[in-house]
Parts: sequence; C-alpha cells; structure tokens
Amino acid sequence: MYKANITITLRSSILDPQGKAALHALGELGFKSVQSVRIGKVVEMEIDSDSLAAANQIAEKACKELLANSVMEDYHIELHELVSS
Amino acid sequence: MYKANITITLRSSILDPQGKAALHALGELGFKSVQSVRIGKVVEMEIDSDSLAAANQIAEKACKELLANSVMEDYHIELHELVSS
Repeated sequence: MYKANITITLRSSILDPQGKAALHALGELGFKSVQSVRIGKVVEMEIDSDSLAAANQIAEKACKELLANSVMEDYHIELHELVSS
Repeated sequence: MYKANITITLRSSILDPQGKAALHALGELGFKSVQSVRIGKVVEMEIDSDSLAAANQIAEKACKELLANSVMEDYHIELHELVSS
C-alpha cells in the first residue's frame, strides 16, 4: 500500500483570488511581513499497488483525468510506502 | 525572505465529503486500487523576516488566527529560505 501526497496549485500566471483575500485579511490582522499568499489543494490518496512505479502511474492518471485542471493548475506527486502494522 | 508551505488537512476523525466524492468519482472512472482520498488545502506564503525562527512564528500565528480551524483541522508548516537572484 502506498500513500500519495498530491499538491495541486494554480499556475503562477493565473490569478488566485482566494490567496489575495487571505493576504488582505492577514494585512488587516497586522501580518505586515507576509508578502504573498497562494492557496492550492492537497490530495492524500491511499493506493493499493505492487510497486512504487505502478502507484505513481495511478496517481498521475488520477490527476490528469479528475483531480487537476491541466490548463490552470500544476500538480506534484510525492509517494511513500505505508508499512502495515 | 522565506517561503512557507503550509498543509492544512481535516483531522482524521472528521468526515471529508469532498474526499469521499473524489474517491467515488475515481471508482466510476475505473481506479479500483485507490482506497481512500482526503482533500485539504495548501498555503504558499512568502514571509519577509530575518530568521527562520521568526518566519516560523509568523506562519504559526497566521495558521492559528486565520488560515486553519483548530477544532477541525491540523496544519503542518515547512519553511525554506528564498535566495534572491
């Protein structure tokens, strides 16, 4: 069993209104040293597969077909094996 | 200048309907080996501060005061220094 941590963020050329709102709110709260905020998604997925390569392929396919919008978003996959207890 | 990557996830005891919906959709698309999906937020923040410790304190405070809901969510902060070019 593998666990995939997938980070999905808006491409840097795409405006991030949610991040802008958080930056503004932080400014109002006195966080003057925060220069920029961008907000994305993280998807934690447990994948039952024989190998790291197969799990990576499944995570990659899931991003392309469902999780990420390839026009506006970038994704990054980190995988590690889950040790069953 | 430091960059904070903050991962905010629902506590494991809290139901994640967005993750459940993604898991169901992946099942419909034929991803039979995906066992569980949980979806959270990632906040990328640039912090102008003198030290890593100070940047960490700011990120921590921002999570507590605005970004995370401490009743329902856990957060994890990763920091690294940005080298100005």
